[in-house]
Amino acid sequence: MDSYEIAVIPGDGIGVEVVDAALPVVEAAAADAGFEIGTTRFDWGTERYLDRGEMMPDDGIDRLRGFDSVFLGAVGHPEVPDHVTLHGLLLPIRKGLDQYVCKRPNVLFEGIESPLRGYGPGDVDFVVYRENTEGEYASVGGREHRGFDHETAVQSALFTRRGTERIARAAFEAATEREGHLTSITKSNAQAHSMVFWDDVVAEVSEEFPSVDVERLLVDAAAMDLIRRPHEFDVVVASNLFGDILTDIGAQITGSMGLAPSGNVHPGDANPSMFEPVHGSAPDIVGDGVANPLATVLSWSMLFDDLGETAAADALWTAVTDQLADESAPRTPDIGGSAGTGNVAADLRSRL
Amino acid sequence: MDSYEIAVIPGDGIGVEVVDAALPVVEAAAADAGFEIGTTRFDWGTERYLDRGEMMPDDGIDRLRGFDSVFLGAVGHPEVPDHVTLHGLLLPIRKGLDQYVCKRPNVLFEGIESPLRGYGPGDVDFVVYRENTEGEYASVGGREHRGFDHETAVQSALFTRRGTERIARAAFEAATEREGHLTSITKSNAQAHSMVFWDDVVAEVSEEFPSVDVERLLVDAAAMDLIRRPHEFDVVVASNLFGDILTDIGAQITGSMGLAPSGNVHPGDANPSMFEPVHGSAPDIVGDGVANPLATVLSWSMLFDDLGETAAADALWTAVTDQLADESAPRTPDIGGSAGTGNVAADLRSRL
Ligand SMILES: CC(C)[C@H](C(=O)O)[C@@H](O)C(=O)O
Ligand SMILES: CC(C)[C@H](C(=O)O)[C@@H](O)C(=O)O
Repeated sequence: MDSYEIAVIPGDGIGVEVVDAALPVVEAAAADAGFEIGTTRFDWGTERYLDRGEMMPDDGIDRLRGFDSVFLGAVGHPEVPDHVTLHGLLLPIRKGLDQYVCKRPNVLFEGIESPLRGYGPGDVDFVVYRENTEGEYASVGGREHRGFDHETAVQSALFTRRGTERIARAAFEAATEREGHLTSITKSNAQAHSMVFWDDVVAEVSEEFPSVDVERLLVDAAAMDLIRRPHEFDVVVASNLFGDILTDIGAQITGSMGLAPSGNVHPGDANPSMFEPVHGSAPDIVGDGVANPLATVLSWSMLFDDLGETAAADALWTAVTDQLADESAPRTPDIGGSAGTGNVAADLRSRL
Repeated sequence: MDSYEIAVIPGDGIGVEVVDAALPVVEAAAADAGFEIGTTRFDWGTERYLDRGEMMPDDGIDRLRGFDSVFLGAVGHPEVPDHVTLHGLLLPIRKGLDQYVCKRPNVLFEGIESPLRGYGPGDVDFVVYRENTEGEYASVGGREHRGFDHETAVQSALFTRRGTERIARAAFEAATEREGHLTSITKSNAQAHSMVFWDDVVAEVSEEFPSVDVERLLVDAAAMDLIRRPHEFDVVVASNLFGDILTDIGAQITGSMGLAPSGNVHPGDANPSMFEPVHGSAPDIVGDGVANPLATVLSWSMLFDDLGETAAADALWTAVTDQLADESAPRTPDIGGSAGTGNVAADLRSRL
């Protein structure tokens, strides 16, 4: 029997709740498909930081390297500034394991009402390939003359040819397997250094993919167009920051942050990829038992898919879409129900 | 009779069409209110660039200084990259005349259907104060090792204390005159240099305005929340780039880019402010005679307001809202009608 070793970092807030609720569902799907997952749990996160002054141990990233994949719940805590927690855990893993593709599907499922008038099930289905290791999230910059009138802060976005080419190529490849339409997000009218470079690289890479048609869209226009004409998007490729903003819009127009899965993918075998629900730690509902576990289950589906276990991946994805399409099934408050995390997970398991 | 000298730069594409159509309406409103406007027209823009290699003359900014105000149509042309046209005209004026407040109201008018389910007239009414001279639009950065594997581009966002304090203060002042609620947009979890500085300055300035309650919102969450709960926003303060993205979302959820006005305001008398519709040059509809002139008329209303001519400002604003509320009035295709630019303008004039 095949077996995979998965590092599980439940993290903060509802991260723990959704990870715990989803695990039996996920293990059942694996068993059905004839493989096993061994999970090793890491108590990394803000509780640990408050205790010991570090979000994860110094050799944290090295410890993850040996695993087949990593699953993360959420990071973020009301008592500690986000730039401390995120720079202490989530962002160093994305960078340290060179997970340069942040892949985020946005699908409007049957049974979910979009906040957009006139949009129904199946009308929205696109995937964002977000650059995940550099760009506007580079830790480059500083702050000088603190407290003086001439105080200045600089935050430098860093785009490398290697970093830009490889995310472009991953997105083009995805487009060849989907509808063949790629939208490249830019802001070259105002950011003449970084974004003109981005445009040039995308244009070069496009020559390797003559079957893909490429549209260039400014990030502000793209934000509008995701509201105005989301049905026309297929694959979107964007920088770290632009991808962050556009995927949150994508989650919103497809009905709930509680449904949005994501993968921080390192293509190739050198490092494990990491999968996580997009929603974050949601301090406002921690402990209420109403966190939506579906984004977590969908993220596990992406994880299985990434391992090549497509049957288990499909089983999880289908369990979720079946449940959403079933009017009598339990659902959490964020998508209009009144059920708890555990009920929804148990119902999912019964659908496998 | 009071009289104001206004520099008019119709610019490119539909900029010319909407400026020309709106001018008689605007002059009539001024006459009704007992003042005159003298307009001086500048042929700056991309046609000039194609002819003479420059978007505006070298002393362009100095020439504008003597005016009471500036009106801009649009900049952008299919034959010339945007970073050339924008950096040749729009952006240097904003910076050169120190127009540090980009003020953009977002109102859902009666007669306009929002793309958001459940939102009706009056449900959305907020204003964005966007920093307009620095931040992510600073011309700081570069590109090295062109064409080599180690090619790298850097785009540095620059935030000064002076620049950040003054936009924060302007936004707090606006909040005291509105509902007293200010949302500060940040991305401090990922951009620990610039955005933590931004947060610190906003927190400091907030002490001068104890009556204003301040909410901090990450830009990705804000993009979502403008779709999820736009009725809860009052005044939003944001950096140059974040303001750009969020105001386009604002225009979209309030029904059309063709309705969104804006002011690039230099508070104080040292320099004129500049007003412009948000929509841009729209090459796809140039020459069709269907460009919506309403954003231009609303921008003139903001211009008059800025000059202290509130009666004329109100008259123009009311003419627009009356027309939109009137089912039998002509409207352009972007808001569901089939009328042309000229008809809409003529109808507006008849409402004054
Ligand atoms: C928490 C934050 C740093 C993170 C990001 O901006 O990448 C989150 O918003 C996301 O999209 O995964
Ligand atoms: C044309 C472009 C440079 C401009 C901007 O980004 O500021 C526009 O989008 C706007 O919002 O006025």
